Amino acid sequence: MDFTPSDRSREYTERVRAFISDEIAPVEETYLRELLALPESERWQVLPVIDELKAKAKAAGLWNLFLPGAEAGLSVSEYAPVAELTGRSFIAAEVFNCNAPDTGNMEVLYHYGSAEQKERWLRPLMDGEIRSAFCMTEPGVASSDATNIEATAVLEGDEVVLNGRKWFSTGAGHPRCAVILFLGLTDPEADRHRRHSIVVVPKDAPGVTVERMVPVMGRYDEPGGHGVVSFQDVRLPRSALVGEPGAGFEIGQGRLGPGRIHHCMRLIGVAEMALEAACRRGAERVAFRKPLINLGGNRERVADARIAIEQARLLVLYTAWLLDTQGLLAALSHVSQIKVAVPLMTQQVVDMAMQLHGGAGLSDDYPLAAAWTMARALRLADGPDEVHRGVVARIEMGKYGMAR
Amino acid sequence: MDFTPSDRSREYTERVRAFISDEIAPVEETYLRELLALPESERWQVLPVIDELKAKAKAAGLWNLFLPGAEAGLSVSEYAPVAELTGRSFIAAEVFNCNAPDTGNMEVLYHYGSAEQKERWLRPLMDGEIRSAFCMTEPGVASSDATNIEATAVLEGDEVVLNGRKWFSTGAGHPRCAVILFLGLTDPEADRHRRHSIVVVPKDAPGVTVERMVPVMGRYDEPGGHGVVSFQDVRLPRSALVGEPGAGFEIGQGRLGPGRIHHCMRLIGVAEMALEAACRRGAERVAFRKPLINLGGNRERVADARIAIEQARLLVLYTAWLLDTQGLLAALSHVSQIKVAVPLMTQQVVDMAMQLHGGAGLSDDYPLAAAWTMARALRLADGPDEVHRGVVARIEMGKYGMAR
Amino acid sequence: MDFTPSDRSREYTERVRAFISDEIAPVEETYLRELLALPESERWQVLPVIDELKAKAKAAGLWNLFLPGAEAGLSVSEYAPVAELTGRSFIAAEVFNCNAPDTGNMEVLYHYGSAEQKERWLRPLMDGEIRSAFCMTEPGVASSDATNIEATAVLEGDEVVLNGRKWFSTGAGHPRCAVILFLGLTDPEADRHRRHSIVVVPKDAPGVTVERMVPVMGRYDEPGGHGVVSFQDVRLPRSALVGEPGAGFEIGQGRLGPGRIHHCMRLIGVAEMALEAACRRGAERVAFRKPLINLGGNRERVADARIAIEQARLLVLYTAWLLDTQGLLAALSHVSQIKVAVPLMTQQVVDMAMQLHGGAGLSDDYPLAAAWTMARALRLADGPDEVHRGVVARIEMGKYGMAR
Amino acid sequence: MDFTPSDRSREYTERVRAFISDEIAPVEETYLRELLALPESERWQVLPVIDELKAKAKAAGLWNLFLPGAEAGLSVSEYAPVAELTGRSFIAAEVFNCNAPDTGNMEVLYHYGSAEQKERWLRPLMDGEIRSAFCMTEPGVASSDATNIEATAVLEGDEVVLNGRKWFSTGAGHPRCAVILFLGLTDPEADRHRRHSIVVVPKDAPGVTVERMVPVMGRYDEPGGHGVVSFQDVRLPRSALVGEPGAGFEIGQGRLGPGRIHHCMRLIGVAEMALEAACRRGAERVAFRKPLINLGGNRERVADARIAIEQARLLVLYTAWLLDTQGLLAALSHVSQIKVAVPLMTQQVVDMAMQLHGGAGLSDDYPLAAAWTMARALRLADGPDEVHRGVVARIEMGKYGMAR
Repeated sequence: MDFTPSDRSREYTERVRAFISDEIAPVEETYLRELLALPESERWQVLPVIDELKAKAKAAGLWNLFLPGAEAGLSVSEYAPVAELTGRSFIAAEVFNCNAPDTGNMEVLYHYGSAEQKERWLRPLMDGEIRSAFCMTEPGVASSDATNIEATAVLEGDEVVLNGRKWFSTGAGHPRCAVILFLGLTDPEADRHRRHSIVVVPKDAPGVTVERMVPVMGRYDEPGGHGVVSFQDVRLPRSALVGEPGAGFEIGQGRLGPGRIHHCMRLIGVAEMALEAACRRGAERVAFRKPLINLGGNRERVADARIAIEQARLLVLYTAWLLDTQGLLAALSHVSQIKVAVPLMTQQVVDMAMQLHGGAGLSDDYPLAAAWTMARALRLADGPDEVHRGVVARIEMGKYGMAR
Repeated sequence: MDFTPSDRSREYTERVRAFISDEIAPVEETYLRELLALPESERWQVLPVIDELKAKAKAAGLWNLFLPGAEAGLSVSEYAPVAELTGRSFIAAEVFNCNAPDTGNMEVLYHYGSAEQKERWLRPLMDGEIRSAFCMTEPGVASSDATNIEATAVLEGDEVVLNGRKWFSTGAGHPRCAVILFLGLTDPEADRHRRHSIVVVPKDAPGVTVERMVPVMGRYDEPGGHGVVSFQDVRLPRSALVGEPGAGFEIGQGRLGPGRIHHCMRLIGVAEMALEAACRRGAERVAFRKPLINLGGNRERVADARIAIEQARLLVLYTAWLLDTQGLLAALSHVSQIKVAVPLMTQQVVDMAMQLHGGAGLSDDYPLAAAWTMARALRLADGPDEVHRGVVARIEMGKYGMAR
Repeated sequence: MDFTPSDRSREYTERVRAFISDEIAPVEETYLRELLALPESERWQVLPVIDELKAKAKAAGLWNLFLPGAEAGLSVSEYAPVAELTGRSFIAAEVFNCNAPDTGNMEVLYHYGSAEQKERWLRPLMDGEIRSAFCMTEPGVASSDATNIEATAVLEGDEVVLNGRKWFSTGAGHPRCAVILFLGLTDPEADRHRRHSIVVVPKDAPGVTVERMVPVMGRYDEPGGHGVVSFQDVRLPRSALVGEPGAGFEIGQGRLGPGRIHHCMRLIGVAEMALEAACRRGAERVAFRKPLINLGGNRERVADARIAIEQARLLVLYTAWLLDTQGLLAALSHVSQIKVAVPLMTQQVVDMAMQLHGGAGLSDDYPLAAAWTMARALRLADGPDEVHRGVVARIEMGKYGMAR
Repeated sequence: MDFTPSDRSREYTERVRAFISDEIAPVEETYLRELLALPESERWQVLPVIDELKAKAKAAGLWNLFLPGAEAGLSVSEYAPVAELTGRSFIAAEVFNCNAPDTGNMEVLYHYGSAEQKERWLRPLMDGEIRSAFCMTEPGVASSDATNIEATAVLEGDEVVLNGRKWFSTGAGHPRCAVILFLGLTDPEADRHRRHSIVVVPKDAPGVTVERMVPVMGRYDEPGGHGVVSFQDVRLPRSALVGEPGAGFEIGQGRLGPGRIHHCMRLIGVAEMALEAACRRGAERVAFRKPLINLGGNRERVADARIAIEQARLLVLYTAWLLDTQGLLAALSHVSQIKVAVPLMTQQVVDMAMQLHGGAGLSDDYPLAAAWTMARALRLADGPDEVHRGVVARIEMGKYGMAR
């Protein structure tokens, strides 16, 4: 057993740390302030500083770090400390072309896409030229049970025809969003997990409409946002299918595995950022003649946060190592475990930090309020906590012959 | 011991219930949607429907119900079930002229104001013609310790001169906000609790500037909002003082007592609203072939929420009864107890309801996300949880001869 | 709404307080020490001090206070503060002839017993001359679902024949235990809730064997204890049935309602005792140059305990008032609510107090360790938390047309 | 990063697993039953089966596995999975001569003992011929602050004289307890952490009296137990000192580091045992027509337990690796982190398992009740949670220049 990171991992971690510190940190606050200072309707644009940062990161080889097959060639566990660092910033993931949902979509196209799909969509995504969305969740059904999905992807001759309404389609509002991965029902008679297909949809295909953007805890997360997207008789050539008809559920699950762990890696960084803010605030502010940190249970809160973060990080690292060495199937329980443990832990640590900041913690003068929303949302995104607890319990009970 | 509400309380509760059901509920959702559909900069206005509802409520005698001395004459405990009902709506408190921070400000003027102050400010406030703000918290110091307050209210001849910067001044953005109650340091040499004064400040007095509005968890809560307000050499006649110089801390505490319990009463209503939403959603949605409510621990969550609400409500009622029968001093621990217990309980119940709603729970299609923010903010507003725990502990330890 | 206790309640509360303070407190510690100093096998006896105290209490009219029909004539809510006081002592409930399981058994005989049963068993129980046990739970089945009960009470001619093995039969080890109430299956074909009967069994009836006593968290709770009791072809006249054949479930539920609330009342007292101990210890002990109470989060723990106790007590009082004024059916959810809330609260407060006592808190030099066990056991006795949460949820969901 | 255990660790883990399964498991339940069937006063003996098992383990080379310098030569992290397995049994640690407090005492003598001390005490301890106790905690002071210790170890000429009363001296009741390590105040004028000395005391030295044994949550943990030990003018040659006079605090801390992690390793095993019991019970028992595990939130409880165990184990492993590779000082925060996290986690998992077992879970028919007590006691033993949270917070705040 050896907790030492590989040389490559350490090297990339240090380079990413330096890049964030030298290039991103000095401009991030200004960027966020400027974006929010725009009228709401004008926030759906890419401000120049983002493109500048992306160009620098790409030139520095800090690009697509999430993809084992990319230039950097980091394994999942090697990527973990890198992703954690990006989690301390709201824009770093994008700057390194490592941001959801593009990462997951790139992985789908990388592993399952046809040569044509790779050329047309994967290449510009990997080049950071276009953005993408993933349309799965629907407002009308409990989408935590993916077999509930009602939107259709029906095969008619050599075409596939899409109908339905999706929401929480992250990235759908981005001005460069060019392509959508759509999950739809193809064969309602098939086995529950063979009914759905994934289709690659040009965002400008006739019948595709972004009806409105949905706020999350009051925030629109511009310029990408989360959209309600309707599909009305969207007709595409059959070659728009990813993999076989009916392979949607399987591909979708495969997509979510790494996606979940990436989110969790970044959330560790969010929690670290919040804990640091809490400590600094606690040391600086004085009330009742003492530094805040020395009042009441505040030191115990700091300790509990540290302990929770350490444990969560180790669980993420172990899960990454399982994915690297034994594959998704062997890591199924652990992927669900981190999905339960990490967002909740981060939410709690951020909440503690907000409380220690007083009103300021709820304002946007500090990153805590937005960080809380991110953690809270991830208790639902990629499957609610409760569904993942169900997976963990099923695997646990399976050891005693009673999975269900 | 008798838990039966008085006839008067029951009567007003029923009339308020009917008014909310008949007049407010049918229009509230539309109102909120319309307000949020406006560009951000145009949301700082009173839409006509609010004035229409206020006129109706006033005509019906459902007006200023919070004030024991007003027409309705409800005691604190009689007001409790009324206030709880208003908590289920985002606008009802305002419609009945029972909304913070005006209620607290009216109470200050009612109990401590001069005849002139009553005529000039209290009357139009009670008539619902103007609105007010309370400027206490400051960005520069830990205001949870009120003796930290650094803004000054210095007596010079027959004038009082104000300087300083306040924030989280709720209501400061309201187009009808005409008057501000300002807490400032008058005599730094006096006893810690005799240093500050409260001053009545016309909002248009020279030197008063609303610098910007501060979002709470990303929301501006238009049209009232929460402002950063600076006071630069604001000169007012000495008659602008409320009570004696140095009486600010005492008056402020007196103001916060009922203010805290009003918030808690309404939060009970917020929690009931959220629990109802959770039950309805849980009964209607289906996943994995069962109603959501029958999956995993969802029924236990509903039970725990019910148990938590019942206990919190009883604690609020008991505190109200203590205030009515034995006064603020005898209720000091209990006022702090509800300030700790109720916002946290409501936050947790709303969080549970959000989770059961999936992504929808985080959106603004349901009132849950905004309700969560309200509960969360009240873990800091009127004093952070930790300060109130300190008060409860001090009184408890005092029983054994060791208050501090 | 009025939280003032009735004069009668106040009077009895004061008299009980004085009796405990004057008569019980001075001897209790010695009694417990002496009992535990005996070899285990000799602890199953009534030490003389107990009989002396009982005689005094009876002479003082502080006797059978739990029974609305008894001399004192206290209602459930009037009894609450009295029972709370008895909860602060390990022997007070017995001294006042108010201890489980006799109270529940007396209530069953009082409400459902035949004249003969009342004369033979109820009178000496009310006189404190004999003791009783209630045999319901079985080792072989999940008895939290009472319809699982497998022991049989079969009608044969004018006899009823009992077979089966029971456990956690509290009081079965008491040297004066003379009578057992037995729940058995009479008609497996009847409706689920009409299958079982309750039978009054002389403890010395042929076929009744106390096989062994079962420790609870390592304690035998001598001299009453908790027994494994087997019934082998125990033949009794049909007149030994309480009420109709098949009425067992209904009577049992009726028995458990008040029994549950009595337990909860006493547990409030246990929690108060523990909180007082925590405060005193926290004020007296010094570590790291400060009183323990001023270290870390200890004051916050005291505050949280106070807040939890206040809420739990109010919920118990409200439930008592519901039982008094609207009956068991109207109080069904609330009886389950307190069964969930109070033992858990008490367990947590006692755990906190133990922690503040260091090793001493785990020893038997303080009453905390035994108090913890009592609270923990009551999360299972009279139905596990989870079953009661299920009842609360069913009633809650019933409001929206979906009880199950 | 590599989570694969070393070959040696894997080999010993497998051999220990086989030994427990083949030799210990078949007899443990009988052993415990027989011990508890003895009258209390006769339980302070070593039943023959223990000696037989010890002889077999020693012959198999499964002996003193905890000691890096012993034959097996396992590092701390290599020992972790071995210790976890022993935690699933109440006697395995003793069988492998790896039980507290002997392990800690052996380490003290191994690292700091004189040649004479090693020959006289360490050798027979390592041979499993004698047992030992560690006398530090005192009933009269808050011993969580070790500088409070009042018992004295005064140097007089070439003698050291001991006076004072200790308690929670684990192992003091064991019939083979031959030696005591005693922490006493030598120089009250020295720096706070240089005042105390450790002295090796033959248990039969004149003036040493085991006054009584103290139960922990009602259990005496025979045959070792926890004693109150008084020292009255115990005179020993100066060579009885371990290390220098005044080195007691330092040696004691060094002793507690590995001691703490050993406890935590075993507690992981306790938690695994409890979770397995919960799963099996949940699968087998039926209530309300379903297996218990499928009722209410039970599956979620299993999932949460699994997630908590995984995280806690990883934290222990990481701490072990830090100890192995960077030493105690670098692992200070993490040793305190596991002391906070692991006993609490285990207590909660065991509590959950007890609840799922109903009354049986509280009885001694299952190992859960005793396991709970062990976990609970370890929230105080080796320093209460709160002190360790303080250490973690101090190190955390130290990063920002404000340790205290």
